[in-house]
Amino acid sequence: MKKIEHIGIAVKDLEASNRVFEKLFGQAHYKVEEVASEGVRTSFFQSGPNKIELLEATNPDSPIAKFLERKGEGIHHIAFAVDDIQAEIERLKAEGFRVLHESPKKGADNKLIAFLHPKSSNGVLVELCQDA
Amino acid sequence: MKKIEHIGIAVKDLEASNRVFEKLFGQAHYKVEEVASEGVRTSFFQSGPNKIELLEATNPDSPIAKFLERKGEGIHHIAFAVDDIQAEIERLKAEGFRVLHESPKKGADNKLIAFLHPKSSNGVLVELCQDA
Repeated sequence: MKKIEHIGIAVKDLEASNRVFEKLFGQAHYKVEEVASEGVRTSFFQSGPNKIELLEATNPDSPIAKFLERKGEGIHHIAFAVDDIQAEIERLKAEGFRVLHESPKKGADNKLIAFLHPKSSNGVLVELCQDA
Repeated sequence: MKKIEHIGIAVKDLEASNRVFEKLFGQAHYKVEEVASEGVRTSFFQSGPNKIELLEATNPDSPIAKFLERKGEGIHHIAFAVDDIQAEIERLKAEGFRVLHESPKKGADNKLIAFLHPKSSNGVLVELCQDA
C-alpha cells in the first residue's frame, strides 16, 4: 500500500459529470477509457499526486449499474497503488480480508487490479492496483 | 483544489476499525482526535501523501450517526486541500455548487473546513480544507 492511486466515483452520465468535475477542479479530465470487460466507461482527472476516476456503466449488468441502482451516484471505491499485487493479495487474505480476486485482472489505465470485499473493510470497496 | 487532503470513512467502532486499517496499511494510525462540535472522534492514518480519517459518532445527533443509520459504514467524504478556503467557497458557489458553509469553520487536524452538498457533486460529499 504505497499511496492512494485513485478514487472511483460512480456516475449516471459521464459527459454531464465531466462538466461538474471540471468546474470543481478548475481543470478538464485528461482521458476517457472504456473497459469492456467491466462494462464501464471512465474518465480521469488529476488531483495533485492522485487521480479521480468517474465511472459510467455501459450495460445493465455492469457492477456500476448495480451500484447506482442500490446506492445512487457517489464514491464507489478507493484504489491503492502496490508494488507486487499478488503478494499483497496473499498478505491481506492472511490478515483476514475477503479478497474478491485471487489473482489480478486487467483494469483501466494499464493496471493489474484486484478488489477486497467491502464487508471486511468497514464498507469500503478497496482496489489494489499495480502498473501492468 | 491542490490535492486530496484526506478521505473520511464513517465507522461504528473506532477501536475495532483502527485494527482493520492497521492490517490493511501495515501501519498504525498516528493520532486520535475528538471534535466535540461535530460529534465525532477521529483517527488518522498516513497513506503516502494523503491521509485516511476514520470517523466515529460520539452522540446520536452527530452527522456521522445519521450517515451510519442511512447508509451504513463506508466512505463518507473526500477532502481537498485549498490555499484560500473563502475564495474557493465563492468560486464554487459561482460555478453552481451548493455550499453548506458560507464561511469556514474549525475542523479536525487544525484545519478550516467547509462542505459542498453532495447533490451538486454527483453524490460526493466534498470537504474543502485549509491549514488554520
